[in-house]
Amino acid sequence: MQPPSSTATTGSSPSDGPTDMPPARVLARDLASVRPGERATLAGWIHRRRVLASVTFLVLRDRSGLAQVVVKDRETVEQLAALPEETVVEVTGAVSANEAAPGGAELVEPRVVALTEPAVAPPAELWRPTFGAGLPTHLDHAAVTLRHPRHRAAWQLAGASMRGFRAALGALEFTEIATPKLVGTATESGANVFTVDYFGRTAFLAQSPQLYKQMLVGVFERVFEVGPVFRAEPHDTVRHLAQYTSLDAEVGFVRDHRDVLAVLREAIAGMVEGIREHAADAAALLGVELPRVPEQFPVIHFSEALAKVGADPEEPDLSPAHERALSEWAKAAYDSDFLAVEGYPMGKRPFYTHPQPGDERWSNSFDLLFRGLELTTGGQRLHRPSDYAVALERTGTDPSVLAGYLEAFAHGMPPHGGFAIGLERWVGRLTGAENIREVTLFPRDLHRLEP
Amino acid sequence: MQPPSSTATTGSSPSDGPTDMPPARVLARDLASVRPGERATLAGWIHRRRVLASVTFLVLRDRSGLAQVVVKDRETVEQLAALPEETVVEVTGAVSANEAAPGGAELVEPRVVALTEPAVAPPAELWRPTFGAGLPTHLDHAAVTLRHPRHRAAWQLAGASMRGFRAALGALEFTEIATPKLVGTATESGANVFTVDYFGRTAFLAQSPQLYKQMLVGVFERVFEVGPVFRAEPHDTVRHLAQYTSLDAEVGFVRDHRDVLAVLREAIAGMVEGIREHAADAAALLGVELPRVPEQFPVIHFSEALAKVGADPEEPDLSPAHERALSEWAKAAYDSDFLAVEGYPMGKRPFYTHPQPGDERWSNSFDLLFRGLELTTGGQRLHRPSDYAVALERTGTDPSVLAGYLEAFAHGMPPHGGFAIGLERWVGRLTGAENIREVTLFPRDLHRLEP
Repeated sequence: MQPPSSTATTGSSPSDGPTDMPPARVLARDLASVRPGERATLAGWIHRRRVLASVTFLVLRDRSGLAQVVVKDRETVEQLAALPEETVVEVTGAVSANEAAPGGAELVEPRVVALTEPAVAPPAELWRPTFGAGLPTHLDHAAVTLRHPRHRAAWQLAGASMRGFRAALGALEFTEIATPKLVGTATESGANVFTVDYFGRTAFLAQSPQLYKQMLVGVFERVFEVGPVFRAEPHDTVRHLAQYTSLDAEVGFVRDHRDVLAVLREAIAGMVEGIREHAADAAALLGVELPRVPEQFPVIHFSEALAKVGADPEEPDLSPAHERALSEWAKAAYDSDFLAVEGYPMGKRPFYTHPQPGDERWSNSFDLLFRGLELTTGGQRLHRPSDYAVALERTGTDPSVLAGYLEAFAHGMPPHGGFAIGLERWVGRLTGAENIREVTLFPRDLHRLEP
Repeated sequence: MQPPSSTATTGSSPSDGPTDMPPARVLARDLASVRPGERATLAGWIHRRRVLASVTFLVLRDRSGLAQVVVKDRETVEQLAALPEETVVEVTGAVSANEAAPGGAELVEPRVVALTEPAVAPPAELWRPTFGAGLPTHLDHAAVTLRHPRHRAAWQLAGASMRGFRAALGALEFTEIATPKLVGTATESGANVFTVDYFGRTAFLAQSPQLYKQMLVGVFERVFEVGPVFRAEPHDTVRHLAQYTSLDAEVGFVRDHRDVLAVLREAIAGMVEGIREHAADAAALLGVELPRVPEQFPVIHFSEALAKVGADPEEPDLSPAHERALSEWAKAAYDSDFLAVEGYPMGKRPFYTHPQPGDERWSNSFDLLFRGLELTTGGQRLHRPSDYAVALERTGTDPSVLAGYLEAFAHGMPPHGGFAIGLERWVGRLTGAENIREVTLFPRDLHRLEP
C-alpha cells in the first residue's frame, strides 16, 4: 500500500495522471536515505529560522520530525525573512550529508515555495525544547500549541496505546462495539450526569458503556469499546475531566475477577507494546520509562492492604497516600509498577458488583494501581437474575428503569466481568504530567468548553 | 498470547494457581479438531433442544458458532427439559465424529452444568434461521434479539470494518485522535443539534469531528477518528439515526480532492479486507457479496452526472433516483460498485469547502456512491486564512464563534482534505438492510431512547 500522495502544490487543477506530478515529497526522517547530491522536496512547517551573517538555517517540521535547510543565496534569505515560524512551505534542494544536522543530512541550495500566507506568530515559541508558556495559554490556543513537539508526543503515546489495546483484545477474539451515548436513565451512578434535550424529553450522556457492554457479552462473549464518556464533575481537580476516553472491556465465561485481571494484564501489555512499536520516538522525547508488565500482576486483598499501610481496618476506601504507599511496596517486593487490590468492600461498589464468595463484606472487584495512582477499576459482575433482584432491592434501585438491561440476565448470561482504563490518566501517569489536561487534546471541564 | 481463561465454573473462590483449573473449554468451531473419544468441555447458550423419542439433541451456541450435543441418558434428558433455550451451560462429554453435525463432530454422553438460572423464553425463537419477529420487537428487546446469529453477524461486519479502516490508515501513518463531543458552538451546520446543560451553560453535541480533525492536521498531518456523532434528526426515516458511528479521516499536503479520494479508496479497501479477514463467516451467513475495490474509483463531474441522468443542468443536488441511475451506469461502464461524483455546486457545501480552481461555481468536493446510495462525503478544504474570511462573510457566519478553529489557519495550515463514512450505512448497504436500525446495536431516533 502506498501513501496516496506525498507531494503538495497549491491551486492545481485536478490531476489527469501521474505525468504532471511534482517531485515526490520526502519526510524529514528519510532525508538521510537520499543519496547526497540528489534533489529532494520537503514539505512542512517552518519550525525555526536562524539568521546568521552569511547563512540562514531553516528548520522544517513535518509529521516525522525535523530537517535542516541551509540557505545562502540572498534572494531566498530575503524570502524567508518574510515567512515567519509556522508558515507552511515546500522546499526543494540538494541533499548533503552533515553529521551536525538532525538525522545526518540537510538540504542545500533550496528553492522555497510558501503553501499558505505568512503565519501569525504563535502564542509561545514552538521551537524551544520546553513549551515556554503556562497551561492556560496552551489550552486556550490548543490548535497551535499542540504542535509543540512535546505536546504532540504526549498524544502520540495515547494514539499508540489505543492501537495496542485493540491489537491485544483483537487477538483474544474480542468484538469491538459502539454503544449509545444518549441514554434514558442515569441509574448507573445517578450523580454527575449531563442532561440533554432529546426531542423534548430528557436524556443523559452515558457515564460509561457499563450496562451495554454487559448486555453485549450475551451476544459476543468478549467485547471492547474505546470511546468518550461523560462526567459532569463539579470539582476543579487535576485528575478529572468532563469528557475522557475510556478503554472498556467485558468478558464472559470467567471463573472470577482473577480471570478479568488476566485480560487486563494482556490489554496493558498491548498498550505498552503499542507505544514501543508506534511511538518510540515520542516516548524517548518525553523521557518516558515504559513499565515492565509482569506475567501476572501482583495482587493484595483490600483488608491486607489496609493493614499494610497501617489504616483502620474499618476504612471503606484507600486514600491517595495509601495508594502511593502500596505502589512503593509493590515496587520493592515484586519490582512491579502495577499492583492489583482486590476485595473492595461491597458497600462502595455499584449494584452489579459480584460479592466475594464466602464473605460478602468483600467484593470480587479490584483497582489496579500504577505508579502510585488508581488506573483502572474492574471486577466480576453479577450474572444471575435473582442476584440482580436482591442487589437492586438493597441499593433502592427501581428495576423498571433498567428493564432493557435486566432482560439480558433473565434470558441467560454467563459469569462475566470487565474493566475500564482512562486513556488520559494512563498517558498522564506515563509522562508524569501534573495535570491531566496536559495530555488531552481539547479538554472539557467545569470552566472550559472551548476551543 | 493466550486467551486468559477458557473455562468457566460458578461460585468458585479466587484461584491460587493452575492446579485447580477445570478442563479447558473448547470452542464450538474447534470441536472437530479434538481427537474422537477424548473428553471436552463446551460452554455457551442452549440454542435449541430437539426432543425425540429416544434422544435429545442439544445445540449449543458460543461466540464461534454452534455445536451439537447428543443426550441419551434419562437423567440428563430430564435435566434439559427444565433448561429452556438461552440458558447458559457448561457441557462436558466425549467427542464423536459425525458428518451430519455442525463442523463434523459432536459431543456424546454429556454432563451438563447450568451456569445460571433457567432462562426465560426470548421474544422470538433465536434458533430459527430467520428472525421471526418484526423490527420493533427486535429493537425493544435488543439485549436478547441481538443474539440471533443474523443480527450478531451484521455487527461483526461493522466490527471488522472498523478494524480494517484503522489498519489501512495506520499503515499510512495516520494518528488516531479523540475530539470533544461537547462543543460550545453549533456553527458547522446549525440545524439538528442536541443541546446539553453544561454546568449551567448551553453546550451542543458535536455533529461531526470536522473542525477538530482539520485543526489536528496542523499537528499530525494525517488523523482519523472512529466515534459517535449526533444529529437531532426530526424526521423518522429508514436512513437516519440520532447517533451513529462516523469513520472520519483528514489528510494534509494534498494537491486537491483527488488525493483525498485516493485515501478514501485505501480506507474502503481496508474495510473490505477487514471483513474478509475477521468476519468471513458473518459475511457468508448473511450472503454478503463483498465489493471489488478498484485501484482508483471512477470519477464523474457533477455537471456531467446531471447530463447523464437527463436532469436539469441547474439542479443543485442529485436525487436518490439519480444516485441509483449513476451507480448502474458505473457498474455497466467500469464494473465498479463505487462511483465518485466530484464538483458539487459550492452553494450546497459547507463554508470550509474548497472551490474548483478556475470555476468557482463548483467545489473540490465529492460524494462517493456505493451500490446506488451516497456512502461518503468528502473533499478538499480551504487552508488560507484569507479564504476563510471570505467564506465566513459569504455564509454570514460570525468569525468570533470559530476563533479557536480559525487560529489554526492564521498559524499556518497545509492544503488538506478529508471524508467521513457512516459505519451503519456501510453495513446496511452491504447486507441490503431496508432499515439502518437493523444493523445498529441500540439505535437512537426520534422515538427511541431505550434500551
